[in-house]
Amino acid sequence: MEISFKMALQYWQNEGEKNKSQFATLQNGYHGDTFGAMSVGYVPGFFSKFKSQLYKTIQIPFANSYRLPNNTTPKEYQNKCLGKIEKLFSNNDKIAAFVMESGAQIAGGVNIYQDGFQGKISRLCKKHGVLFILDEIATGFGRLGSLVEYVSQNSMPDIVSYGKMLTGGYITMATTLVSKKIYDSFLGKYSDMRHIYHGHTFTGNPLSCAVANENLNLYEKTSLIKKIQKTSKVFEKRMQEISDLSIVGDIRHKGMLMGIELVQDRDKKTPISFKKSTNKVIFEEAKKNGIYLRTLGNIVMLVPPLAISESELNYLIDGTIRTIKNVSK
Amino acid sequence: MEISFKMALQYWQNEGEKNKSQFATLQNGYHGDTFGAMSVGYVPGFFSKFKSQLYKTIQIPFANSYRLPNNTTPKEYQNKCLGKIEKLFSNNDKIAAFVMESGAQIAGGVNIYQDGFQGKISRLCKKHGVLFILDEIATGFGRLGSLVEYVSQNSMPDIVSYGKMLTGGYITMATTLVSKKIYDSFLGKYSDMRHIYHGHTFTGNPLSCAVANENLNLYEKTSLIKKIQKTSKVFEKRMQEISDLSIVGDIRHKGMLMGIELVQDRDKKTPISFKKSTNKVIFEEAKKNGIYLRTLGNIVMLVPPLAISESELNYLIDGTIRTIKNVSK
Repeated sequence: MEISFKMALQYWQNEGEKNKSQFATLQNGYHGDTFGAMSVGYVPGFFSKFKSQLYKTIQIPFANSYRLPNNTTPKEYQNKCLGKIEKLFSNNDKIAAFVMESGAQIAGGVNIYQDGFQGKISRLCKKHGVLFILDEIATGFGRLGSLVEYVSQNSMPDIVSYGKMLTGGYITMATTLVSKKIYDSFLGKYSDMRHIYHGHTFTGNPLSCAVANENLNLYEKTSLIKKIQKTSKVFEKRMQEISDLSIVGDIRHKGMLMGIELVQDRDKKTPISFKKSTNKVIFEEAKKNGIYLRTLGNIVMLVPPLAISESELNYLIDGTIRTIKNVSK
Repeated sequence: MEISFKMALQYWQNEGEKNKSQFATLQNGYHGDTFGAMSVGYVPGFFSKFKSQLYKTIQIPFANSYRLPNNTTPKEYQNKCLGKIEKLFSNNDKIAAFVMESGAQIAGGVNIYQDGFQGKISRLCKKHGVLFILDEIATGFGRLGSLVEYVSQNSMPDIVSYGKMLTGGYITMATTLVSKKIYDSFLGKYSDMRHIYHGHTFTGNPLSCAVANENLNLYEKTSLIKKIQKTSKVFEKRMQEISDLSIVGDIRHKGMLMGIELVQDRDKKTPISFKKSTNKVIFEEAKKNGIYLRTLGNIVMLVPPLAISESELNYLIDGTIRTIKNVSK
């Protein structure tokens, strides 16, 4: 994501708009662990110790459907958040770009966007001349059931990043795509100095590209996206079983991603907490049930391999249910 | 390098010294292209367009042996720079770490340290309780003729980073090592929250580790460091031929690294400049002579593969001399 922030800053300088240097984002967004990424995707629990050296961004509340302000429906809360974005864009001409994960926030708590949320932000960006940067590193290429998530969200980024699934996770590879408008802005005579300085040692690695090409062939050969859309129905089918458990406050699911939020009290929605690290308690219990489970605080996260079979996914869910039952005793 | 900055900031917080959050560096240092790396290794020509979002660091003048202040010997200039560092450390208790490339600055202009410079900074850090962070990504593992450059510089880092040559450049891999003092500071009970949040998708990649292991075997099998020390004598032998050229102001060489600074006027030391990009002029001319040459502004940089043979290196130098002669016409 670092390159996308650099391109956004320089784009406006190339266009002669030297004032546009601020980033706006959603609360709980996450974009990586380097200083630029920590600044834009600032998760306090992860990054508070580095705050002195992070740059400031403008954070808009995320329209969370589970934890709503008093007397608000999810739809009303979404409109309130969109209203804040529109107000921000109208009153602040220093914003270079709005940055968000495409389709869902993952590390920030498996928060899946309501219908129309991303598309409306995309159109607000266009209307107010703010660049729209999407992070599909964790959510694109099948995780949410679509190959290109921004298409299924009816939105259009100026800059979008991919990673992880490009090589099936086997070898380091990431890529950042831009629209023609952005690309053209970096062209010109040498003396115009419109070109960007960004060149990592391992950029354009031929081995990674070969692995990515072969991986994309496998997407086609195995009709992976269709397979995911079918397999993810197992999640849907079995959600009811999990939601009956008394410590399960909320279940959020899309494609091959599920977040199960554990609470002490379903009415008050108070997050569950153990004497020891919640991560450790659940990880140890899950191991006894034959699976590895990762939690984000009180949220159990299921992010299986995209090519997982239905029976393997059932095995994972069986183990997850047993784990959650056992830790609640 | 991003992880080394994060570890330095958190180390001091783990130790209860919440004030220590500033980085001191050398002018012209370069540590990479991400926001943390651009902040600490701020090269204005590369990064001025991102300055609004970079954090501030304290930059100490580099003791350049070629461009000296009036009436100063290289040794006097070095002592002046060391004096500035000592004064800084004495008067500022907010400095978390001093960061520098180990042995030489590369992207900042192929600036090779004078004898004793790095060792003295290392000891000043120790004396004043400032962490000493070394970047051996481009300079370690043989580039300067040593396997571990900080040993040959008689210095001892608290944190040191390697990359590039670990896998011979074939596959992405970097590693950051710390002293036991730093390591221990991150240990404790979960509730102490001393652990660090830093986990890239491709961290600990087994394929990269296998390539690195095999590469290190080849270092031993082929006695690569000894071979480099022998091959680098070709550079030494042929420096005289190059230094006679009227546009060559200075030649800086160590191990398998050479920087040839081109000037318009040897007395005034004014950098050469062409109507078109210097990089392009020299790159195009070099191609006609059968080689690829990269320049840093007016500095022609030779960074051959470490396993290059003497005859191949001679071929590279022949082409370089022809290129420099031709562009000076």
